[in-house]
Parts: sequence; structure tokens; C-alpha cells
Amino acid sequence: MTTHSLPTAEQIWQDIDAVRQQAPVVHNITNFVVMNISANALLAAGASPVMAHAAEEVADMVNIASSLVINIGTLAADWVDSMETAMQRAQVLGKPVVLDPVGAGATPYRNAVLARLLAATTPSVIRGNASEIMAVAGLAATTKGVDSSAASSDALAAGKALAQRTGAVVCISGADDYVLAADGREAKLSNGHPWMTRITGTGCSASALIGACCAVQADAFQATVSAMSLIAIAGEIATRQVQAQGQGVGSLQARLLDQLQLLDADTLKRELRIA
Amino acid sequence: MTTHSLPTAEQIWQDIDAVRQQAPVVHNITNFVVMNISANALLAAGASPVMAHAAEEVADMVNIASSLVINIGTLAADWVDSMETAMQRAQVLGKPVVLDPVGAGATPYRNAVLARLLAATTPSVIRGNASEIMAVAGLAATTKGVDSSAASSDALAAGKALAQRTGAVVCISGADDYVLAADGREAKLSNGHPWMTRITGTGCSASALIGACCAVQADAFQATVSAMSLIAIAGEIATRQVQAQGQGVGSLQARLLDQLQLLDADTLKRELRIA
Amino acid sequence: MTTHSLPTAEQIWQDIDAVRQQAPVVHNITNFVVMNISANALLAAGASPVMAHAAEEVADMVNIASSLVINIGTLAADWVDSMETAMQRAQVLGKPVVLDPVGAGATPYRNAVLARLLAATTPSVIRGNASEIMAVAGLAATTKGVDSSAASSDALAAGKALAQRTGAVVCISGADDYVLAADGREAKLSNGHPWMTRITGTGCSASALIGACCAVQADAFQATVSAMSLIAIAGEIATRQVQAQGQGVGSLQARLLDQLQLLDADTLKRELRIA
Repeated sequence: MTTHSLPTAEQIWQDIDAVRQQAPVVHNITNFVVMNISANALLAAGASPVMAHAAEEVADMVNIASSLVINIGTLAADWVDSMETAMQRAQVLGKPVVLDPVGAGATPYRNAVLARLLAATTPSVIRGNASEIMAVAGLAATTKGVDSSAASSDALAAGKALAQRTGAVVCISGADDYVLAADGREAKLSNGHPWMTRITGTGCSASALIGACCAVQADAFQATVSAMSLIAIAGEIATRQVQAQGQGVGSLQARLLDQLQLLDADTLKRELRIA
Repeated sequence: MTTHSLPTAEQIWQDIDAVRQQAPVVHNITNFVVMNISANALLAAGASPVMAHAAEEVADMVNIASSLVINIGTLAADWVDSMETAMQRAQVLGKPVVLDPVGAGATPYRNAVLARLLAATTPSVIRGNASEIMAVAGLAATTKGVDSSAASSDALAAGKALAQRTGAVVCISGADDYVLAADGREAKLSNGHPWMTRITGTGCSASALIGACCAVQADAFQATVSAMSLIAIAGEIATRQVQAQGQGVGSLQARLLDQLQLLDADTLKRELRIA
Repeated sequence: MTTHSLPTAEQIWQDIDAVRQQAPVVHNITNFVVMNISANALLAAGASPVMAHAAEEVADMVNIASSLVINIGTLAADWVDSMETAMQRAQVLGKPVVLDPVGAGATPYRNAVLARLLAATTPSVIRGNASEIMAVAGLAATTKGVDSSAASSDALAAGKALAQRTGAVVCISGADDYVLAADGREAKLSNGHPWMTRITGTGCSASALIGACCAVQADAFQATVSAMSLIAIAGEIATRQVQAQGQGVGSLQARLLDQLQLLDADTLKRELRIA
């Protein structure tokens, strides 16, 4: 990875701190499985989540939000209509939109919905695992359910093509997380722990946190790096804590939220592994 | 606040204990974000939650429940129909109804739904934060998402007017919680901790617990005071515990549920701050 | 209970370990309250959960899953259509289906839905509490909400009749768990702890884990015994841990997930109480 133009630890910290200070309203249209953890991740990080999906109010909710997060995990036809309406409204208002293409490639319907949403709007950021990014990019990928069967590095070419074609920042999460901008900027983040994949909604929470950072940081590339650094380092510290106590992935969920709240500048700067 | 006619700590404890002994069935039509924590709060407190929203069965479920809790957090048209049906059925049967107007004031749709529900029925209790109560009362209020941008004391006049106009007990939650009855009784509860606002569903769980207390205590004013005392003291103790261990708001959620289950009479009486 | 033909602790362990090694995709169409904990239980146990309910994709999702879990907790008309479609697709493909008849007997609608699903398909396993199994079996039962008002042993005759009539393995969960096969095999499991009923979704998670075990063990009777042993022993150990620390049912949820992940062969063999 190139080192020039990478956000510094200090810049990342400033984004994390800005979320805590400004408490931006983040509007989520997300899936049933992760709504609670996504809301809790946003609250722990200092943001103010709203969840609303009714066609009658999504545009109004976008009006009062600072950013929008769309997650297609448990999609259905009426929800997709609301997603499109909300995304279009956000685009009109110039508010950042994060798209989490959960399970992309798993079913033809899921792919058709993604194609429709991407034809109608341009998200600021698209975040998924390697299988999902490859599927969104239209490249061959075998999706095994909603968990990735490919390494994040496998999806690099697809991710870059997707960024260039859409103009969106693309984030491929995995053992390493890659953040790719249409202008060629790239960052590789090597924090995190495999146990984080054993809690549902970690990826979805990452997308929500990207939404929070995009609300306080106009550069979507840097905002994405900041959010991914926050959750990966929080998860790494939390995993160390629970393993030291002989606990497992159930306890990890609470500790991860704790660290989203408690992580300080010194720890972030010491732990950050960016390249 | 007037001190005469305030429930005593012993009376509050008896309500909390009655929930544990009687395990009342509380029917919840609530939002997707908080369904899990609401059910767990009810179970921890000793009640028996049911969640059902289908038009085909909501009235039948009200038949077998002891109280009904309506929360409009993630509302949609078909859910609103079911909410109205369930509220009307409960009213016919004389069963207590708690209304949690999540996000009141945030969108015109949300306000229209609340106006419809309040035209069709009279809840026993309406519980919200200051922004929500002010919005429901039809007074000017700036709602910032679903978190309150006003202090609970700011909404006192609105809350009293709402109680008198509807006959419902009105509960304004915040740093202090206010419980206001149409007959002029008032209570100010000063337990709780700001960290409780950093977990999603704390307010919604409070509403669910009011439903549980209303099922065992016919005086909705006292039932509301009892439920709010329980959750605020539980949260206060839980916060002390997690802070003593260097943990944060993620760990707080579990500990709050622990205290809903484990709180004893002596602790309640020692900690209660009511005026 | 007869002791011959009971799965051994070693066989049970092999099923639990096979889930960890094979990470089967388990497709869940389940209720809003428990989606998160069900997904987390599957992930903790090593499986790969997917949740999808749209009519447009449920059959395709069944295609890529190894088993299907249907839970009617918060049912609605369109979800029931999808449940039927998914169950029929799984049956065509010969994939195991677990049915969790939450709240059976509570409302006429719930009973009608179950009658429809059972007329259209034959699940591999039906798991419920005593009230639910008695309701499904068409016998008289008083259902109090969704928590059981009958002991699991009360439902034994109903469970056996249901197994023989449908060919499904029937699991009655309670203080003791009974697993009943159409061919007359029976197992009585005496692990677990009453506190497990004070967390929402424990039963639903048990059903999800049966789905995971059915994906790796063709004998649905043994798979059900394996899954029920896993969650009951995990819950028993987790309860001991939280009680030793003066904690309650809120902390239990995380610790239960921990034990689904961390339980080892020796502990399983030492703790298993099967007859």
C-alpha cells in the first residue's frame, strides 16, 4: 500500500472524538438481526441512531439525519422501496450514504435489489466482506450464506473496479480491512480479531459507524478509515480482555461496545496498524 | 413537588414483588430495535412477555394478556392498524395500556399516527422523553432524532396538560423522571444514571415495565412510579458496578437486567429518591 | 426411559464438533425478538446463520443452506407464505427442517397457521415447551402467553402421538427435556437451569442449534439430543458462573453464548445427564 495520503492516527482520533462531541443523528434502514447491536454501537460511539423504514416517513427522517446507512440483510419489497427513497433523498440533500450489501451474491433477488439501488443512487461508501464486494462488482464469487468464503485480499481488484465505476469509497472487511477510493487512495488496516466474526452484526455495526464518521468528516475515505480503525481496535482490545478471563464470544459483544465508548487517543495511536 | 399522596418505598416494593410473584402476561407491540431487550427486561423483572402484531391475532392476544404496551419506534401502516385494534380491545376489556410515543415530533407521519391512536383510545400511561411528551402534547418542541434535546423539567407544563386532557398518567423520563396524574398527583424520581441513555431500549424497557406494574397495581400512577423506580435504581447500581470494573455501556446492558432481577427491598428503600 | 439406542456422550460430542468443523449454513425464518440471539447462538456454536424471509428469495436461500429453522413467534401473513415456500423447498431437496411452534394454542390464528404448515410439509423436528407441544398435538392445553404453564412430562403422551402421526422427532423442552422419535426412541435430558427461561430466545436458540446439528447428523433424533445437550449444559455451566459472581439473568445471556463456543468434550461427558 502507498503510505502517502494515508490518514494519520491523529486525524483518525479527531474523527472518533468529533462523533463523541457532535453526536450526529444517523438514520439506519437495516436488518432485523442487527438493529439492536447497530443502535448500541452508535450510542456507545457517541452518535444518535434513528431507525425508521416506513415509506410515509423515510424522506422526512433523512431530512433531520446527518447520514444514512442502508443494510439489505433481511430485505423485503416494501423495505427496498423505502431504501431507494431514502437514498435518493440523501443524495439530493448531499448527505452521506453508506451501503452494506449483506449477502450479495447469495440469491438472484438480492443481486437485483443491489443493481436497482446502485442504478438509482451513488452511495458514498460501500462496505462488505470479500464475497459481497466481489458480487457487487459483478465478478465471479461463490457466496456461502452471508459469511465470506473469500479472503479480503482476493477482492482487491473487484473493489478497486467498483470504486472507480461508482465513485464510492469501497471497504472490504476481513482479516485485513481495505479501504479504496475512486481517486486511487488505498489503506490497509490490520487490526481486529477473528472472534469478531463470531458475533452477528459486527460488520453491520462497522457500516453504521462509517455512517457516524461520514457525518463529521467530509472526506468519505478518511471517515471510513476512522470508523474501521475504531471498531477493529475496540474489538481487538475487547477480545484480549475476554480471553484473559476465560470468556468467549458472548461476552465479547458487550466488551466491544464498552471499547467503542472507552477507547482513548493514546490507545488508538499505540494499537493502530495502517499501511 | 407535593409529598402527600406519594407512593411509599414499601408500596413500590410491593408492586415490584407482585410482578415477581404473579408473572403477569404483558403483550407488547413494539419496535424491532428493542424487542429483545424489552422481552428480557420483562423476564428479568419476573413478568411474562408476549410479542405479536398480526391483525389476525392481536385482539386474541390482548384477551390472554394482563396489560398492553404500544411502542411506535419502527412503525409501519399495518402495524399501526394492529396497534389501534389491540388498544381498542384492551380498552373494552378494561386492561391497562401503556403508550410509548418514540420519536414523536420527528416526522409528520409519526405525529399523525399518534393523533390517530389518541383519538381512538385513551392509554392508561404515556411515557416518553421531554421532546416526545412536548410533541404529543402539541406544544412546540424540537425533536432531534429519537433522543431528547430537551430536559425533562422543560416538558412539565406540557405533560400536565396532556394528563389532564387525556386522563392518562404521563411519565417524562430524563435526568429526573416525572410522573403526572390527571388528578394532580405528581412524583419526581431522581435515580438513574446518564449512561442508561447510551443503551438503546432503556426507555422502551421502562415502558414495558410500567405495563408489568399496571398489571398488578390498579392505580396507574403508583404503578408507573414503581416501574420507573425499579429501572432507575437498577440502572444506577448497574452503572456503579461496571464503572468500578472499568467497563462501559456495553456491559451495562447485562448488568441492568441483572439488577431488575436481583434488586431487593432493602436496597430499593435505601436508594429511592422520590419527591 | 429405555437406555438402549440412546446416543452416547461421545456421539453427542462428535455432532457438536462437526458443527464447529463444518460451519453449516442454517437458514432461519424466525421471530423479531430472537433473531439476534439465535444468530449469535449459531455463530458461537460454529455454524453460519442466514436470515431471509422475502418471498422472492426464500427458496433460493434454502438452496444454499444445509438446514432450515422455522419459528412462528411474531408471525404475519406474508411471513407464513414464505415459511411454507421454504419448508416445501427444503422437503423437495431433502434438507432437514426444524419447526418451533412458539405460542401454539395462544390464539386461533397461530393454531391455523401451524395446521397449514403441518398439512403442507413434514418437519424433521418439532421443538416446543409442554403447552406448545400439547397444542400442536391437538390435545387440551392451557397456554399462558408463550411461556409454558405445563410441565414437560405432562406433554409426553401428546408428544409421542405427534411424533407418530407426523413422523417428526418431537422435542419437549422444560425442566427435563424429552426427545421422542416416531420409531419409539426416547431420551430424557436433565441438564439446564430454570434461569435459562428468564432469557428470551433460549428455546428458539435451542431450535436453531437443532437445525445446525441436523445439518451434520442425518439421524434427526440424535441431532436433537446433541443440540439440546449442548445448550442445556452450556446454560448450566453459565448459570453457575454468574451466580458465583452475584450476577443475574442479564449476564447469563452472554455467558451462555460463551459456553456454546467453549464447551469441551470432557466437560460435556462429565455433565451430561441422559436417560
